[in-house]
Amino acid sequence: MGETWATLGVDLHLETGGDASRNGVRRGLTDALREAVRGGRLAPGTRLPSSRSLAVDLGIARNTVADAYADLVAEGWLTARQGSGTRVAERVVTPPARPAPPRRTGGAPTYDLTPGSPDLATFPRAEWLKAARRALAAAPHAALGYSDLRGRVELRTALAGYLARARGVHADPDRIVITAGFVHALAIVGRVLRARGEGEVSVESYGLDLHWNLLHHAGLRTVPLAFDELGTDVAGLSSGSGSGSGSGSGFGSGSAKAVLLTPAHQFPMGVPLHPDRRAAAVDWARREGGVIIEDDYDGEFRYDRQPVGALQGLDPERVIYLGTASKSLAPGLRLGWMVLPSGLRDEVLAEKEAAGASCGALDQLTLAEFLTSGAYDRHVRGARLRYRRRRDQLVEALAERAPEVHATGIAAGLHAVIELPPGTEQSIVQAANWQRLAVHGITDYRHPLAVTPREDALVVGYGTPAEHAWAGALEALCGVLP
Amino acid sequence: MGETWATLGVDLHLETGGDASRNGVRRGLTDALREAVRGGRLAPGTRLPSSRSLAVDLGIARNTVADAYADLVAEGWLTARQGSGTRVAERVVTPPARPAPPRRTGGAPTYDLTPGSPDLATFPRAEWLKAARRALAAAPHAALGYSDLRGRVELRTALAGYLARARGVHADPDRIVITAGFVHALAIVGRVLRARGEGEVSVESYGLDLHWNLLHHAGLRTVPLAFDELGTDVAGLSSGSGSGSGSGSGFGSGSAKAVLLTPAHQFPMGVPLHPDRRAAAVDWARREGGVIIEDDYDGEFRYDRQPVGALQGLDPERVIYLGTASKSLAPGLRLGWMVLPSGLRDEVLAEKEAAGASCGALDQLTLAEFLTSGAYDRHVRGARLRYRRRRDQLVEALAERAPEVHATGIAAGLHAVIELPPGTEQSIVQAANWQRLAVHGITDYRHPLAVTPREDALVVGYGTPAEHAWAGALEALCGVLP
Repeated sequence: MGETWATLGVDLHLETGGDASRNGVRRGLTDALREAVRGGRLAPGTRLPSSRSLAVDLGIARNTVADAYADLVAEGWLTARQGSGTRVAERVVTPPARPAPPRRTGGAPTYDLTPGSPDLATFPRAEWLKAARRALAAAPHAALGYSDLRGRVELRTALAGYLARARGVHADPDRIVITAGFVHALAIVGRVLRARGEGEVSVESYGLDLHWNLLHHAGLRTVPLAFDELGTDVAGLSSGSGSGSGSGSGFGSGSAKAVLLTPAHQFPMGVPLHPDRRAAAVDWARREGGVIIEDDYDGEFRYDRQPVGALQGLDPERVIYLGTASKSLAPGLRLGWMVLPSGLRDEVLAEKEAAGASCGALDQLTLAEFLTSGAYDRHVRGARLRYRRRRDQLVEALAERAPEVHATGIAAGLHAVIELPPGTEQSIVQAANWQRLAVHGITDYRHPLAVTPREDALVVGYGTPAEHAWAGALEALCGVLP
Repeated sequence: MGETWATLGVDLHLETGGDASRNGVRRGLTDALREAVRGGRLAPGTRLPSSRSLAVDLGIARNTVADAYADLVAEGWLTARQGSGTRVAERVVTPPARPAPPRRTGGAPTYDLTPGSPDLATFPRAEWLKAARRALAAAPHAALGYSDLRGRVELRTALAGYLARARGVHADPDRIVITAGFVHALAIVGRVLRARGEGEVSVESYGLDLHWNLLHHAGLRTVPLAFDELGTDVAGLSSGSGSGSGSGSGFGSGSAKAVLLTPAHQFPMGVPLHPDRRAAAVDWARREGGVIIEDDYDGEFRYDRQPVGALQGLDPERVIYLGTASKSLAPGLRLGWMVLPSGLRDEVLAEKEAAGASCGALDQLTLAEFLTSGAYDRHVRGARLRYRRRRDQLVEALAERAPEVHATGIAAGLHAVIELPPGTEQSIVQAANWQRLAVHGITDYRHPLAVTPREDALVVGYGTPAEHAWAGALEALCGVLP
């Protein structure tokens, strides 16, 4: 559907489609000349024919050629000087180097039991689109503009209701800030703490190095607390120099300390933080003027009893509550939320502004509609049933096929920990990988400075596989266990 | 649709809707007890009735009460000790302080001619939803998972084609990184430069303090270049200590300098950077090992000639190209992109990871579909016609009603600069605000250290109003001009 001309050593391929008019011809000529200069076919200094003679050669209007030359002069490819005509600019245009391809791993595994992802095949695509349509139909034009740093009020309002009802969070829309997922929120909190003069954050002995690294990048050290069967031992939190008054008058300044916890379901160990320790953590924060960062990543998924409510409810002025749609819906949404002590809100918003990132308004409005319409509850209920069934199948299969091992942390969440005989973890992970089963050992989640006795275990993300791959993944897992 | 019981001074309102079973009763009881503790109606230390007797009182199963008690013990609201029964925990639960409401301005203006926003009423909602539906139908499940730090490959591929065709950008998908809008990209670039040891960035005499502040927050000073009728005077760029070899081997390290420019359409002055200065800027970057940050915020909108191509095409290894969907579609999408010199990509990705924020996958996939289906081009063409008509109406109205003033920067973009008689800017802006017409003076965009002679002018964002408000806004503007 085009025509190719050769002149000046330049191939001009002019589309004769919709834009075939003068503009189309001009654009084709401009593009062809630019490419010829860029590619070196028209060398620097080359004098171009006059617009009149090139127009005659090409059988097009002289003004079209003159306009194309002017475009390219404006862009810096050509120069036009009185008396010397139009020439290719004297600068050497270097073709860009091609960046090295990103690191690749050795091919995708056949089965994936790494934790951290829900079953992406069950993302409620049709329901989500329906909510998006309703949300967009109802949205005022201003919702498409530059927005409140805190995020859309529709979503903050819907979340305040949902979090109070489902997670026992004391939330009002004014203290909620929407983020582009959990890690965005944690990066902001890390920078706020650093700006307050903090040098370190207490963390759990087991967790994600991604999270520790975010805090390190913000200029904070991470110091692990001990871990036992009651969960993380908060008695190890620092004390003595606090300025907290215990009056509940807000997060103290100056000597405040911070701790990052997963109280509802320790990641990846799977135990809930013991009630005494929940209380002790809050007492510590009040006494020392400290702050607790509560990572409530999968609080919705609990199978044997009601979900354990959020720690935040015990003292909203001492706890930064962080939640996410990554486990309940999909990580790709990049939607998270913070519920903040009132004294921290302005600092958090200043850091959020400085980092420049916000979550798109359409996804925010869609999630708000998803929550208020009840679609979110329906989806979570369905997911809970599916994951519970998988959990049961995992436990049964282990009892039958691998009676030597023992699964823990199975009351909740999307993963379990399988305790292994001492010294076997590394070889079992390696055997799994040889059979293209992706699974992680607990060692991958251990803080480098942890003093808790080492154990051998696998962390099995039974939420990750699609339904059709689940039976095979389970079979492959049993095949590598002792 | 519920039943209210009063006992223990606790109002139990139990929904008898869908979840009316044992779980519904248990949740209702748990919530009511939690609220009673939180609100102080059940004082710390209060001993609760045995689960048996409360169950009889309430006419519900004993296990339901026992479960509710256990839930609240796990959350820390109650304590259960052998021999002392179940009691309200001894901690005082402080009600959270209510954060102060955010600053509010004195009510929305009737007419808004502030620049920086397209007409949000023309966002193509139906087309966008159609693209979202197609994109979601075609997306692999993995697209909903944790993603490539660079952003979705579908969008990077679509953008590479579009930017080459429409903006003369040398782009391949490997050097594109998707961001949550322009400011996110600029914040990342600022941090990369700081991490490289840069102390300052040259900027234009006129621009947005939001952008300068992002750079300041990253630890960089901003130093304005002079400005005249040919645009920003790049002769003022620093020189002498550069390590650049001029060989085009990539962005030099160590002594590199950086400059932030709006070459296609200076913001807010509206002139394109003169071709000689485009060339001089690239020559400077090669000679000194510097880097140019190209802010191509509204490159699609040009009325009297073809859009001026991006500076990046002249040397992709010396220019960081930053683009956005904020002007062409809507700021609320929070979608932007960077096209990077190959030598900077890994550093940019490391900073992006450390800041924790990414753009949602669904919006990325939708924009990719929007671009490849041609819907983006159609929308931009329609918008160009609408804004051109407004531009023409503005120029006509000024000629007729305010012959004393002169509009400049009108060949492109969504705003114009109206030059005012010396000394009148402040009083005219104030008069406009009194009449509920929001409009900014050029002084709002002037860098505090700028040495360029001061002018009096208004920056008129004729893209901002909705169609129905445009005639009134224009009328109001003419009413306050001399």
